Amino acid sequence: MYQFTYSIPTKIIFGPDKLDKLGKELSKFGKKVLIVYGGGSIKRNGIFDRATLSIKEAGLEYCELSGVEPNPKITSVNAGADICRKEGIDVILAIGGGSVIDCSKAISASAAYDGDAWDIITRKVKIGKCLPIVTILTIAATGSEMDPVFVISNMETQQKLACGHPAVRPAVSFLDPTLTYSVSPFQTAAGSADILSHIMEDYFLDDGETMYFLDRFKEGMMKTVIKYAPIAIAEPENYEARANLMWTSSWAINGFSGAMRKSEWSNHMMEHELSAIYDITHGLGLAILTPRWMKYVLDETTAPKFYDFAVNVFGVDPALSQMEAAKKGIECLEDFLYKKLGLKSTLTEVGIDDKNIDVMAKKACNGKETLNGWKVLTPAQIAEIYRACL
Amino acid sequence: MYQFTYSIPTKIIFGPDKLDKLGKELSKFGKKVLIVYGGGSIKRNGIFDRATLSIKEAGLEYCELSGVEPNPKITSVNAGADICRKEGIDVILAIGGGSVIDCSKAISASAAYDGDAWDIITRKVKIGKCLPIVTILTIAATGSEMDPVFVISNMETQQKLACGHPAVRPAVSFLDPTLTYSVSPFQTAAGSADILSHIMEDYFLDDGETMYFLDRFKEGMMKTVIKYAPIAIAEPENYEARANLMWTSSWAINGFSGAMRKSEWSNHMMEHELSAIYDITHGLGLAILTPRWMKYVLDETTAPKFYDFAVNVFGVDPALSQMEAAKKGIECLEDFLYKKLGLKSTLTEVGIDDKNIDVMAKKACNGKETLNGWKVLTPAQIAEIYRACL
Repeated sequence: MYQFTYSIPTKIIFGPDKLDKLGKELSKFGKKVLIVYGGGSIKRNGIFDRATLSIKEAGLEYCELSGVEPNPKITSVNAGADICRKEGIDVILAIGGGSVIDCSKAISASAAYDGDAWDIITRKVKIGKCLPIVTILTIAATGSEMDPVFVISNMETQQKLACGHPAVRPAVSFLDPTLTYSVSPFQTAAGSADILSHIMEDYFLDDGETMYFLDRFKEGMMKTVIKYAPIAIAEPENYEARANLMWTSSWAINGFSGAMRKSEWSNHMMEHELSAIYDITHGLGLAILTPRWMKYVLDETTAPKFYDFAVNVFGVDPALSQMEAAKKGIECLEDFLYKKLGLKSTLTEVGIDDKNIDVMAKKACNGKETLNGWKVLTPAQIAEIYRACL
Repeated sequence: MYQFTYSIPTKIIFGPDKLDKLGKELSKFGKKVLIVYGGGSIKRNGIFDRATLSIKEAGLEYCELSGVEPNPKITSVNAGADICRKEGIDVILAIGGGSVIDCSKAISASAAYDGDAWDIITRKVKIGKCLPIVTILTIAATGSEMDPVFVISNMETQQKLACGHPAVRPAVSFLDPTLTYSVSPFQTAAGSADILSHIMEDYFLDDGETMYFLDRFKEGMMKTVIKYAPIAIAEPENYEARANLMWTSSWAINGFSGAMRKSEWSNHMMEHELSAIYDITHGLGLAILTPRWMKYVLDETTAPKFYDFAVNVFGVDPALSQMEAAKKGIECLEDFLYKKLGLKSTLTEVGIDDKNIDVMAKKACNGKETLNGWKVLTPAQIAEIYRACL
């Protein structure tokens, strides 16, 4: 029976030139701000100056944590949590994409804990009081700006783990599509593959219940990505394309379309092992894995959902048999990812060989015997999917 | 340029048998509860007892305001606001449909004002401090459980006016599809016409911007109503149908799909005049009006949107010309409303003649010269639309 608790209180300020409201929004949470960001492009392109101007005008103080990595590391989290404790930070301002926001969530959850933040990520220590988070999003991809989940890597233990808590869902997020004009064609493509994957992880599942309404919503989101990602790549300053991708990225994963259910997110679990070892771009890893996973799980029982996908998302001829349409739908997805978005289609092309496949396949089960999901996968089956990607 | 502020913090507790959580949710706001309800069916069917049991178990006290009318009257609002002031109410619990929830919102907005609540509705007096609202929804229709708007009638002045404020958006809403099993076929049909209208009022507009993503979402919601309303009428205890209708009703009007924009809602403005004078069921009035409005505004400039509607919602042949498809789409809607839902198709059938048409046409402009919207309508044109409904 279809039941859930829905609560997405994140306030979204969507549109260009809204950063003058930043100081006012931050001041609702206190006086001292920790600004978290990545490689420093926000200093070159003026976003940092616009943000700090508004912060100062509101009479607030700020500290900085820079250098957050594309797959954020536990070392950055510990550094940020240290600053929070030493400086008495009231609110965290994340400026960046999913990595920076995820890192900020981990800092928020760890600031009140005096030990190694990895204890929080591994759930050895329970999350207590969290610091509020405000974000300025600079790339449409992970949806971290409106969800309560974060993923942190530990290069020492070669682990990449997901964690979540309602209290780290950002309180306010500034979504300005013009800030994504400078996102490169490759990052736009990889981000779009990530958005698509978020939608598909909640679409391709069967928990014996039907929320027809939400499946139509998910199909609409997939169509949006398929329509606008190539436009954003060809015309980086197309506001309509960037706005549609940005708002879709948030709704793909904020919990609404998945109806607050915990699906197993099989492709993400497999991809996390890839990037834990090889540090490849998350969306690229997903783009390589997903069609192979689809072919592996396609059978008589799963074909009806693939049929809906093919017909409703890619406009495949509804007169085809379920299995024919299903296969055609997967072909259309491959065509989109590898031709229209121009993403690499094999692990070999990104320099990954079969050396670690069995280890990754085991770790993808995340401590369990199998990777549960639409189809339960054993480590041997997961290894087969990895090998099909070579 | 597409921009907005999104903030929908209403917490939704969706599913059967959740009322044991009611007391805990209410207790977050204080000790004294005003329970607002309608004709008393909630006392016969056990909902009142289940709610008050949970309230007592949480150690809270409650007062009651019963007898809220189907088109809630300002007299009920004043009565409720009186109780709030005299009893020191902390939180309002609305048990019912849109009318009860709308009345509760008006009470919430008026409780701190010592004069006639009509001053608030007519905006003579600004809304100040509001009381928090928790709702238990018993019919899927108006979406009032998740939006900040309320509509109140004054039979003395023959006015039905809409008002809104972020602070009256319900804090928590309990959505239990099984509570709508007892909704009659007629009320299910009228409620579904209301939901459809909410989606269409934000779909048929042209503000020079494209949020493709949201238009696909709106089409998915329309398809959901078209699929499940007839099922809910034929099988009143079909959980899947009731759940899809209920969750769609909330999202049709909570502000998300309209992207927080103020569209003019022409059909609602025209319908409000009908029910202000004749007190007819809101959804029925909308069902009679909407196809006539569509035929009236259909021309070369509006045909493309009607084409999308026809093809994407009703599966009309995409090979037809825009105008042919558009007309076919309107026919499909008439067939759905008058045949599949069995709603009456003319004002004459519900006992309304042409006597008040010119007065209503003028009042539908709400104090302005024209009714602005997708097509600007003069009172003479509005009167033509009313006459086409006879």
